[in-house]
Amino acid sequence: MIKIIFVDKKRGEYSNEIDNYIARIKKYTPITIDYIKSLGGKNTNDILKKEEVLIRKIINPNDFIVLLDSKGKEFTSDRFSKWLLEIITSQNVVFVVGSAYGLSDNLKKQYYLLSLSKMTFSHFTARLLLTESLYRAFCILNGSSYIK
Amino acid sequence: MIKIIFVDKKRGEYSNEIDNYIARIKKYTPITIDYIKSLGGKNTNDILKKEEVLIRKIINPNDFIVLLDSKGKEFTSDRFSKWLLEIITSQNVVFVVGSAYGLSDNLKKQYYLLSLSKMTFSHFTARLLLTESLYRAFCILNGSSYIK
Repeated sequence: MIKIIFVDKKRGEYSNEIDNYIARIKKYTPITIDYIKSLGGKNTNDILKKEEVLIRKIINPNDFIVLLDSKGKEFTSDRFSKWLLEIITSQNVVFVVGSAYGLSDNLKKQYYLLSLSKMTFSHFTARLLLTESLYRAFCILNGSSYIK
Repeated sequence: MIKIIFVDKKRGEYSNEIDNYIARIKKYTPITIDYIKSLGGKNTNDILKKEEVLIRKIINPNDFIVLLDSKGKEFTSDRFSKWLLEIITSQNVVFVVGSAYGLSDNLKKQYYLLSLSKMTFSHFTARLLLTESLYRAFCILNGSSYIK
């Protein structure tokens, strides 16, 4: 199964597009969305440390943890689907989308980094890119034509 | 100035997020959005040829034409802003977002190819990525903090 963890100041709206992709992914695999409230702090390091504690509380180290990071591994849609299939057949996959401050260096050293674009995008757009990529991956694996 | 050309079956909704980015870009530079209705055809080549004719009708060869293509040049947000600045000081920049069928090989051989991600995304998401990237580029160039 797939778990997505969003860290953000507000829970936010998932928008019709994101809801739509999540509903479609559920036809292929169980998927849950968790939300961690980003806490303020004196500086970015403080904030990231606090967020790291909250993230570690809800991730299971036996799962395959993937952090979204613009410096991470980039895939084409086809290769992403094959990569996902290899992992998901034996482990739960957890995707973590950090807050506007990013994710702590400790977490980034420990876990797999995935990049959906070299560019930086808003948290909303990152959510959309991740859910759309996952939906497309399952369509490719199942030979379904996907919405364009 | 910047011109964006969307090729799609339907004009589509630009969504609040996209409208919001376009309104914000206008604070920095004039920007226009053109829409070309994607016409059907017997096969992808036919469709792309017809679309190429329509695209050529509205682009000015003196402008700097940029086609969005997953195999194009990728930039980080910082480098994208510098690249854009170099061009826009002397030329209008025209971004073309092709239909679900992509863009013709003829066009791709002739013009600059820009990739916002190695992954394939829907036309809606491509619109969002382009407008958000442009907005961020102007914020970086103007030293403004952008929405996260």
